Amino acid sequence: MASLLPAALLSLIDELGKLPGVGPRTAERYAYYLLREESRIAQKLSTALRELHVNVKHCPKTFALIDASQEVSPLYSDSSRDKTVVAVVEEPLDVIALERTGQFKGTYHVLGGAISPIDGVGPEKLHVPELLQRIKEDAVEEVILATNASVEGESTALFLQRQLRDIAPDMRVSRLARGIPVGIDLEYADQITLTHALEGRQSL
Amino acid sequence: MASLLPAALLSLIDELGKLPGVGPRTAERYAYYLLREESRIAQKLSTALRELHVNVKHCPKTFALIDASQEVSPLYSDSSRDKTVVAVVEEPLDVIALERTGQFKGTYHVLGGAISPIDGVGPEKLHVPELLQRIKEDAVEEVILATNASVEGESTALFLQRQLRDIAPDMRVSRLARGIPVGIDLEYADQITLTHALEGRQSL
Repeated sequence: MASLLPAALLSLIDELGKLPGVGPRTAERYAYYLLREESRIAQKLSTALRELHVNVKHCPKTFALIDASQEVSPLYSDSSRDKTVVAVVEEPLDVIALERTGQFKGTYHVLGGAISPIDGVGPEKLHVPELLQRIKEDAVEEVILATNASVEGESTALFLQRQLRDIAPDMRVSRLARGIPVGIDLEYADQITLTHALEGRQSL
Repeated sequence: MASLLPAALLSLIDELGKLPGVGPRTAERYAYYLLREESRIAQKLSTALRELHVNVKHCPKTFALIDASQEVSPLYSDSSRDKTVVAVVEEPLDVIALERTGQFKGTYHVLGGAISPIDGVGPEKLHVPELLQRIKEDAVEEVILATNASVEGESTALFLQRQLRDIAPDMRVSRLARGIPVGIDLEYADQITLTHALEGRQSL
């Protein structure tokens, strides 16, 4: 059947099918859309893809994503940001999620993943040494462990907590609060979340 | 917030967001995936996109999609295909769907859409004159109207039925059967489908 479609279309369907969560039908739909629309749309996407890896790099200090032209992340170099408070996150997009709250004035440190023995990701693949060095250099007073609430995120937080206690026993180490998300009915909350919500209950 | 991400990443998210059914979050996920993987994956997708419009064209006879190097669709030029039977479909991918059945040995004619006054698509935007010409040239004996079972597909079928009766009153014009799809319980079938299934009932 495959040969019923032009090779260039098949090859595009193939490449689009590598995107996360995109099956053959979705890839077909995307490809056909791009074919039916003016070629300008496919061209612009093509150009954006070609320039992606050239024009984006990781900040050497925080490992957030920055323009290739930048030295260091503006969220770090900005003098209004408190360098003594560091939120440790797994991925660069987590920085954006926290920034959207508009509540955090510290700086970030992107680990580049979470400890996951199944996926062959040990602590040595994460930007942990760089974190320990920043803590010394910037005289960090608090590290907020903002890894995901997954098994991997929890293991990573636990691992970091122990490492940090070793190198800076007096530094405050905190973890994002766990509890009922806004807008969720109690009856739909899972048991573990409810347990966390009970344990972390706040006096009024 | 936007400026928190590198311009090249934002531009890619923007372009990916133009794909059908892709919202900002999905576009972010695709873009970040492409950034995290080896640059080869983004490069190959970029190349496939650049070559799409260059290497794919429409068959001048059937308007199916073909390689730019091909003269005419192999589904038409193949001498084993019966040129006196023409299945009329809306879009090129409909050809693939029908070919997958392995049951059809005639040829195809792709209209390039369906009549839809709301979207400003009148019959003049479809490959109708080319269909009428083929009917004469190839001495077509049967036209199967295989447009979608939507309002637009039905209107298009009705329009074509009238046109065909005018130019070839004795030619057989048929429509794909409508009824209960395989695997669907009667209780979940909608009223219109059930009505069609009753009207089109087959003697055993």
